[in-house]
Amino acid sequence: MTPTPIPPPSEAPSPTTVNSLLAAIADVGADPRRGGYSRPVWSDAERELRSWFLAEAAARGLETTTDANGVLWAWWDLPAARRGGSLEASRADAVVTGSHLDSVPGGGAFDGPLGVASALAALDQLVAREAAGALHRQRALALAVFPEEEGSRFGVACLGSRLLSGAIDPERALALTDAEGITLGEAAERNGLDPRRMGPDPAALQSIGRFVELHVEQGRGLDGPEHSGPGSAGPALAVGSTVLGHGRWRLSFRGQGNHAGTTLMQDRADPMVAAAETVLAVRRLAAARPDARATVGRISPIPGGTNVIASRVDLWMDVRHAEDEVTAALVAEIADSARAHAAAEGCTGELVEESLSGTVHFDPQLAATLSGAVRRTAPAAPLLATGAGHDAGVLAARVPTGMIHVRNPTGISHAPEEHVEDDDAAAGVLALADALEELL
Amino acid sequence: MTPTPIPPPSEAPSPTTVNSLLAAIADVGADPRRGGYSRPVWSDAERELRSWFLAEAAARGLETTTDANGVLWAWWDLPAARRGGSLEASRADAVVTGSHLDSVPGGGAFDGPLGVASALAALDQLVAREAAGALHRQRALALAVFPEEEGSRFGVACLGSRLLSGAIDPERALALTDAEGITLGEAAERNGLDPRRMGPDPAALQSIGRFVELHVEQGRGLDGPEHSGPGSAGPALAVGSTVLGHGRWRLSFRGQGNHAGTTLMQDRADPMVAAAETVLAVRRLAAARPDARATVGRISPIPGGTNVIASRVDLWMDVRHAEDEVTAALVAEIADSARAHAAAEGCTGELVEESLSGTVHFDPQLAATLSGAVRRTAPAAPLLATGAGHDAGVLAARVPTGMIHVRNPTGISHAPEEHVEDDDAAAGVLALADALEELL
Repeated sequence: MTPTPIPPPSEAPSPTTVNSLLAAIADVGADPRRGGYSRPVWSDAERELRSWFLAEAAARGLETTTDANGVLWAWWDLPAARRGGSLEASRADAVVTGSHLDSVPGGGAFDGPLGVASALAALDQLVAREAAGALHRQRALALAVFPEEEGSRFGVACLGSRLLSGAIDPERALALTDAEGITLGEAAERNGLDPRRMGPDPAALQSIGRFVELHVEQGRGLDGPEHSGPGSAGPALAVGSTVLGHGRWRLSFRGQGNHAGTTLMQDRADPMVAAAETVLAVRRLAAARPDARATVGRISPIPGGTNVIASRVDLWMDVRHAEDEVTAALVAEIADSARAHAAAEGCTGELVEESLSGTVHFDPQLAATLSGAVRRTAPAAPLLATGAGHDAGVLAARVPTGMIHVRNPTGISHAPEEHVEDDDAAAGVLALADALEELL
Repeated sequence: MTPTPIPPPSEAPSPTTVNSLLAAIADVGADPRRGGYSRPVWSDAERELRSWFLAEAAARGLETTTDANGVLWAWWDLPAARRGGSLEASRADAVVTGSHLDSVPGGGAFDGPLGVASALAALDQLVAREAAGALHRQRALALAVFPEEEGSRFGVACLGSRLLSGAIDPERALALTDAEGITLGEAAERNGLDPRRMGPDPAALQSIGRFVELHVEQGRGLDGPEHSGPGSAGPALAVGSTVLGHGRWRLSFRGQGNHAGTTLMQDRADPMVAAAETVLAVRRLAAARPDARATVGRISPIPGGTNVIASRVDLWMDVRHAEDEVTAALVAEIADSARAHAAAEGCTGELVEESLSGTVHFDPQLAATLSGAVRRTAPAAPLLATGAGHDAGVLAARVPTGMIHVRNPTGISHAPEEHVEDDDAAAGVLALADALEELL
């Protein structure tokens, strides 16, 4: 028999889509126990994703840097600057887009990575437009990846953008600890950063002329009851209007640790009982305030033995509302309830604020520009308020910032069920490219 | 100046007291976060304690062995057997005393180690009595140390004595997992045991003619309200009458994991809320049944992020009562309540029994012998029921078994505040030695 010749590899590169980019990282940080992905900042998984991003950017000829706060930057400089013009001047008022690569424990595939992959895919489109003479830029474009957006490891969300923009005192930030008692400063040092240089970065901030973050929608804002029922198709895209004010508090209850078998029920000062009363108070008091959201998703009894009455129980509470006064009033009510329940059980209750961010209204002019561009792809794209926090929300205090949300047909996020259809992801990339083109 | 001569070291050995024995291990497994000690089975700390015991026994000329289930044995054989008589015959109906060295997380210094150290100190007294011609034994004495008495690592208490006595199916035991997913079989293998040989050990069981466990009292049985108020002095010692029936159950609630900020309160199926309702039901239903004890000391939300509505919450429940029917009825009530609360929240609730032991009545004849001996030291020593589980309770199903309890002036156990006065510990050793002398 004549051997069949092996065909030569196809010369045509497969088009880079946001889906092919996400497919390349689909195994990184998969969590067999929780489902979905666990990619806490500077874990092996998140470090692998950071390397992946830097390699993708370098493959596109972008200059990449990691700044003092661990934010990754990839620069698509102006052609003039690349030919020897002033790099610094051209980067002073750049257009920046990006998101984050860390996840909550057991999170979805899109929260964060969709924005990073869409930034890379939109860049590819813009490069092609420039090469075809269809894009004449005045500004450099940078892609940015922010560390610890979720706050899953050190407890404070959007830590990278907070440090960079001066929204958190670096001394306080560096002393934050993870579940193993490792401080942010120690972890940063182990990952090649110099803790003494972490904190406000006026030069980095000044380089951000406009910031646009594309993100998976995390509730039912583009699908579900607010449109015509779950599973129905709302528009594929939306433009961000506001980010709900939100904060995190730790509630610590202290009682008397003791033996589960020998301690009579009437002799107990059990902080687990006070904590349980408080979980229910959080639900009840939040439900009584329209549009408020309050959640206890994390609780940790000490010592945590089955046959041991706990001596202490810590729980963490996430509270959000569009009006900052309502958030404050709700937290005060919950704190009062927690202290009363603790006292009734012979325990003490203590509330510690871990982070608090007021409601953010995105720049109206930028939102209008984004809406114009986005509606070319998704004509019905609404302005959408979101209950989720974002680096864009933190940066909005310092620079004009906007967001593009991509439809999530499950309405579920921070969970494995989070989903984005391929077509919607492609629509997001096209709209992002169009919006960036107008801004560049 | 004339140099001062250095005095030679004292030739007189310091007397071995239970306090000096415990002082030697006072640093092993100290837990800086929880306070007290964390010495789970086969942790570095517990392994160090096992080595310490074997060394102390060997230093006394005892032959030591580790049996197929990881129980440590130290044999004080009959003088005739040591001179070449039949070792096997002399060990067939021995008197055995001992306890355990593992702890709950953040436990006290005495729960377990007091019984082991007292066994060594009592042996020293008996050796001296035999040397002085005041003790003429018919039987060998063995000191025994049982692994995983607390069930802190693999969830089932008294695992060593259960395996040895056939009270747990070895296949089921070997498949038990710790918090990191390591099975008992794997952990045993890493610690030099052969999992295929683990399980009922008729030879070991037959060697136990009588078993006596000395243990710190873990409630207010010898001090506090039942006598003349907390801090008042009841008798230093008691003899065990019964061990309350007790069991452990895992309750798993499953709901819909989701984003804490974007999910409206009315759209939630939050298993943390169902779990909190159940913690309160456990307290309420147990308090309604006289002398019942029910505790939730351990709870674990999955994924456990602050900004994530949990998809699942596991909690562990410890329930005890003197009447096994009451325990069963109480657990059934709690399970009904848990399922109802889960359904009301759009969640599911599932109950899994992890262990269950009926109420144990110690051998009355042995209790009478122990009482006679103990009352020579503590004339008012009562017969005392305990709510705590013990290896003695497990072995009681197969061999005559008894317990000596030593006063705990705080009334607190499974916590750093657990305490035993030096004089009470010494009284315990003397009473144990006297009791063993009668049995030998």
